[in-house]
Amino acid sequence: MKDRIINWRRELHQIPEPSGKEFRTKEYIMGQLKNMGLSPVEVGETGVYADTGKNPKVALRADMDALPIDEENDIPYRSTHPGMMHACGHDAHMAMVLGAGYMLAEEKIPARLIFQPSEETIPGGAKKLIELGVLDGIERIFGLHVDPTLERGKIASRKGVMMACSDEFEVEIKGKGGHGAYPHKTRDPIFISSLIITSLQGIVSRNVSPFSPVVISIGKIEGGNAFNIIPERVKFYGTVRTLKPDVKEFVKERIFGVINGIAGTHGAEARIEYRDGYPALVNHPDEVRTIEEESRGLFEYVEMEHPSMGGEDFSYYLEHVKGAFAFLGIRNEEKGIVYPLHSPRFEVDEEVLLPGAVLLTRLVRRYEDKKD
Amino acid sequence: MKDRIINWRRELHQIPEPSGKEFRTKEYIMGQLKNMGLSPVEVGETGVYADTGKNPKVALRADMDALPIDEENDIPYRSTHPGMMHACGHDAHMAMVLGAGYMLAEEKIPARLIFQPSEETIPGGAKKLIELGVLDGIERIFGLHVDPTLERGKIASRKGVMMACSDEFEVEIKGKGGHGAYPHKTRDPIFISSLIITSLQGIVSRNVSPFSPVVISIGKIEGGNAFNIIPERVKFYGTVRTLKPDVKEFVKERIFGVINGIAGTHGAEARIEYRDGYPALVNHPDEVRTIEEESRGLFEYVEMEHPSMGGEDFSYYLEHVKGAFAFLGIRNEEKGIVYPLHSPRFEVDEEVLLPGAVLLTRLVRRYEDKKD
Amino acid sequence: MKDRIINWRRELHQIPEPSGKEFRTKEYIMGQLKNMGLSPVEVGETGVYADTGKNPKVALRADMDALPIDEENDIPYRSTHPGMMHACGHDAHMAMVLGAGYMLAEEKIPARLIFQPSEETIPGGAKKLIELGVLDGIERIFGLHVDPTLERGKIASRKGVMMACSDEFEVEIKGKGGHGAYPHKTRDPIFISSLIITSLQGIVSRNVSPFSPVVISIGKIEGGNAFNIIPERVKFYGTVRTLKPDVKEFVKERIFGVINGIAGTHGAEARIEYRDGYPALVNHPDEVRTIEEESRGLFEYVEMEHPSMGGEDFSYYLEHVKGAFAFLGIRNEEKGIVYPLHSPRFEVDEEVLLPGAVLLTRLVRRYEDKKD
Amino acid sequence: MKDRIINWRRELHQIPEPSGKEFRTKEYIMGQLKNMGLSPVEVGETGVYADTGKNPKVALRADMDALPIDEENDIPYRSTHPGMMHACGHDAHMAMVLGAGYMLAEEKIPARLIFQPSEETIPGGAKKLIELGVLDGIERIFGLHVDPTLERGKIASRKGVMMACSDEFEVEIKGKGGHGAYPHKTRDPIFISSLIITSLQGIVSRNVSPFSPVVISIGKIEGGNAFNIIPERVKFYGTVRTLKPDVKEFVKERIFGVINGIAGTHGAEARIEYRDGYPALVNHPDEVRTIEEESRGLFEYVEMEHPSMGGEDFSYYLEHVKGAFAFLGIRNEEKGIVYPLHSPRFEVDEEVLLPGAVLLTRLVRRYEDKKD
Repeated sequence: MKDRIINWRRELHQIPEPSGKEFRTKEYIMGQLKNMGLSPVEVGETGVYADTGKNPKVALRADMDALPIDEENDIPYRSTHPGMMHACGHDAHMAMVLGAGYMLAEEKIPARLIFQPSEETIPGGAKKLIELGVLDGIERIFGLHVDPTLERGKIASRKGVMMACSDEFEVEIKGKGGHGAYPHKTRDPIFISSLIITSLQGIVSRNVSPFSPVVISIGKIEGGNAFNIIPERVKFYGTVRTLKPDVKEFVKERIFGVINGIAGTHGAEARIEYRDGYPALVNHPDEVRTIEEESRGLFEYVEMEHPSMGGEDFSYYLEHVKGAFAFLGIRNEEKGIVYPLHSPRFEVDEEVLLPGAVLLTRLVRRYEDKKD
Repeated sequence: MKDRIINWRRELHQIPEPSGKEFRTKEYIMGQLKNMGLSPVEVGETGVYADTGKNPKVALRADMDALPIDEENDIPYRSTHPGMMHACGHDAHMAMVLGAGYMLAEEKIPARLIFQPSEETIPGGAKKLIELGVLDGIERIFGLHVDPTLERGKIASRKGVMMACSDEFEVEIKGKGGHGAYPHKTRDPIFISSLIITSLQGIVSRNVSPFSPVVISIGKIEGGNAFNIIPERVKFYGTVRTLKPDVKEFVKERIFGVINGIAGTHGAEARIEYRDGYPALVNHPDEVRTIEEESRGLFEYVEMEHPSMGGEDFSYYLEHVKGAFAFLGIRNEEKGIVYPLHSPRFEVDEEVLLPGAVLLTRLVRRYEDKKD
Repeated sequence: MKDRIINWRRELHQIPEPSGKEFRTKEYIMGQLKNMGLSPVEVGETGVYADTGKNPKVALRADMDALPIDEENDIPYRSTHPGMMHACGHDAHMAMVLGAGYMLAEEKIPARLIFQPSEETIPGGAKKLIELGVLDGIERIFGLHVDPTLERGKIASRKGVMMACSDEFEVEIKGKGGHGAYPHKTRDPIFISSLIITSLQGIVSRNVSPFSPVVISIGKIEGGNAFNIIPERVKFYGTVRTLKPDVKEFVKERIFGVINGIAGTHGAEARIEYRDGYPALVNHPDEVRTIEEESRGLFEYVEMEHPSMGGEDFSYYLEHVKGAFAFLGIRNEEKGIVYPLHSPRFEVDEEVLLPGAVLLTRLVRRYEDKKD
Repeated sequence: MKDRIINWRRELHQIPEPSGKEFRTKEYIMGQLKNMGLSPVEVGETGVYADTGKNPKVALRADMDALPIDEENDIPYRSTHPGMMHACGHDAHMAMVLGAGYMLAEEKIPARLIFQPSEETIPGGAKKLIELGVLDGIERIFGLHVDPTLERGKIASRKGVMMACSDEFEVEIKGKGGHGAYPHKTRDPIFISSLIITSLQGIVSRNVSPFSPVVISIGKIEGGNAFNIIPERVKFYGTVRTLKPDVKEFVKERIFGVINGIAGTHGAEARIEYRDGYPALVNHPDEVRTIEEESRGLFEYVEMEHPSMGGEDFSYYLEHVKGAFAFLGIRNEEKGIVYPLHSPRFEVDEEVLLPGAVLLTRLVRRYEDKKD
């Protein structure tokens, strides 16, 4: 079983595909599911699900997409798609769900295996799959995400908020360009953008409660082509992390207020494109306790002190059915597995794949056994 | 004579070359000078000068280089060098000096015709030509620059400072990159750059006399690749305009102080590359009066209310010999000649070329006649 | 008993005294303790303690000082000290500890009653009393603080951090004064202070984890005497709230770094007087559970969602012995008891005083009974 | 004559009075004018004028008010009005005009002697006196102002703009106060004021031409009473200096725009009280030349390189009739006369008073002689 799961992961690792374009991945998954004797169902363009028995109540979810990164690992199963890489471990997620499905199918325990596209790109694939009915009849859902900051052998989760709401925004400040020697004939968007970015700090430092974790970061700025010409426009791009819907709405409103207010004050126009991200991922407490309990003998459970500021569209499922998400440790310094998610040198300690799959089967059994 | 000058200008217009690479231009100029029976001398790689008589005391200077701009004018004598264009009128400057040289040679009045490379790019060609001796024996020098903001028929200059000292700088702020969700693990160079650009405003508003015109403009900023990753570095590029050497040194020192101080305060490093530009162009008062007097009948003379904030390496010549520089109006709305210098649609009203050349001959005659 | 406690509170309410000057209060407390047959011991200039039996293991603490506020309540027991008022409820705290002492003495249950001066003013009285031995032989300590934001009938506390570390700072920016028409001859401390206050926001927004609650607020700024004269100096005053010692040290260091860095960048000097406040108040979990359990029948216990950002020198006791602190609800809209702590209209719903005293006796009994 | 003028100055020095309250000064002046046989006319409450002959065409103006400063000079003729001092030299101005009047009256040369109240306080006395007719029949006006930065023996003026337009403003930022530990419940006016003052720098650095001298300085800021309470309001006070009416209007508009814009962006209200000051003082070129010519033998004339950024309501007279203003050097390091205007140790080298008065008589004679 262990080799089979590792083999799945490696074959998937070689065919990474971008969000929404997981065509080969879907074909591969469907082939493997059919080999197990299951009847995979396509959902949307690239999603798949399959039931290991009749009327399953528990779903296991894996995400399918990869990232536009050039793999730098020198391994036999290196990505064969130039410029694309499974640098977020979705190959491992799929392999574990395939493994769990295989074992559950053998034991004739019903579960729904959900292979979801497009986790990496807003608006995410989860919402659409739910609309297309993948949760019909389902009462509980679980998901795992590999975590290179956590030692192999550990599993981490937390009751309540576990991951943040992660929004994106894109701002264009349109001033008036002109020669750098005559700034008074321009409306200098570089100066104005500097004032805006400086003023945005006040949202976190002055406008939100110290007990409401909020992050507003600008990741990219660009404007102008020449040292002596004041450009017409500057663009900058940022991310917003919050843990609660009302805080998120307040922060979003303040971001619009500050950007429009400062730009207007200095005679510029702001165009803001704000992309609402996934809602915060809120675990159901009982299901977190289930993960803790079922991990015994497989992993050491760690309660996270505070949420991760990352985002996950698994959060949508938890708005509909009970369930929980967990981070599975894959760090292994001896093997050199220390690179973060989204690194071109990201790797997975494959020793976790089998126990990970076993954990997933236990989670299913827990609720099917109880016949609740 | 008028057609000859216009023809020169048009032929030069078709072969624009970048600063320091004016090889075809040099060949063309030397050929024309030889046609007049003169003996052009090469100076440096692409400079040329020629005397119209023995022991000239007066020099006329034209600059030779063009700009990396794609010409958008639809004219028969359009640039034949893709991506290069005489968008700063140096073709007209050369044609007028050739024309003046032709007339002076015929009249056997001695003058030195200087064709100088690389006016557009710091450190400029003037300094080198002076080191190579083009001012040996010279007592006065004059130059004209076409000006599309001034109506055809007018000529403008001013006693004392006429053009600014124009420096450039390039700044790299090296903070510490990281994920946008965890700003406390980074030293955010976009935030730090915003504080720096905001603080730089204080130099002009608080540190220099209101009677010392100073401009500090940032023309370009760039940093980061993703909305959610705080980058390691931000770069920005600026220009500094001043009119006096001591003010320039003070402002330069403050720019270093503010950038290094703010970066250091926030744990970042600043790498500053500051390129000292041409000194301010300071006309000699008597020679300005000469231009005013000799323009009668040719152009309406206008005393500039204040200096231009542009820069010119003609300033170096005026540090060695007496002389003056003037702006020659070429604007003509009827003909659609309204585009600014460095525009891909810049044009010259060629009607000014002959009177411009005549003015240059008068300036020479004034000082040769006087035998001062 | 109820009337007795209310009477104590009202008599104390009439003689509010400033931090460190609680002389009449001490005399009053000692008199009452003697009336109960106890032998009060003076500690320091104005502190008192008394044991209700031999070798007590549990201490109950009340704070004694009042605030420089003019009482605006129209009540028979109004403050008789003009400009001073028990606007923080310390009168109620003392009355409840007196009441508990009375009952414990009658029942011959040993407890130490600690009356501590100077809670309102850094460095606080707790530290000194501990040095003078008030905790000798003590194993557990409890304290209550009335809370006008909490309904009467409720009691609130939380495991771990319950109140913040609260530091103060005072900054003088010394620039160079001069006439407002000639800013270049000055080093404008108002402009420099504005840059500093703007930059300080970055500590919270960029330098600390979103999961480390931190507040930096400037409460007062002053500088200059005339609209047209740039002053020599500006002073501003602020407060810093943190929950963990390492975060506090980091934030303190950054405050010094930002202030000195920005001032130095602009040629000014900064003088910073930073007063370390009380450490964060960290409750011991078991003793919080004890409060929760012993409150049954008296109050509805509420677990606080997050710490208060206020400070308390009760924190020092908890660094030496186990124990817990709690907020006692006194809000009563019907009676108009809605004004916040430190308001000139602050009042206490006296109905809570007897059950509060009873709770204190229960807490003592819990540990004396157990003979742990 | 010299003693008489010095005596006038010293007697006036002893009775300094605030703007608009120059009652004793008026009485004194009227008495002296009557002693000369003239018929002084009261204008407004404290103004005076007198003609030295019939139908004068030339006016000489002296200002009358003193400053709320405690004189620190130890001199026999020290101010007898505690807290008031002639620290701006208006005593000297009056003495010189009295002296000139005396000499002109003796020679029967007609001139109008204008003694104007309230030069130090906006809106100034000049405007009102003009409305009341002091310029009726007048064609030229002159005034002198003593200058402790200029050596005794020199006189300075310049054609065109000689002194600035000097406006004042007062700003109240009304946010929302609250406890410093809970900034998210406030709208912090100290933070908002810092952003405003920082942003105001952009007006000078980005919005006005480098050739338009403009100063915006904040001289005073105040807000808050406690280090830990965010106040409701902050007030700050500033001055604006410009040289041209259109620039002044533009800058004023931008100041309103920036303050209202930034305050509004952050949820605060701004109340701005803007007091328009005297217009820029613009000398008539021919009359400046007259001062230069008539100074020969009395003073060394110096052409000012650029205007003073100070203000003067003499500017109003020059909007109605031709004339000029000049600075009279009174600095004398040997005598220790080095303190600036408005200093409590300001003094005047009285040796300049007689030649100053003589110059005034020459200026009158020039135009009366010409009978233009």
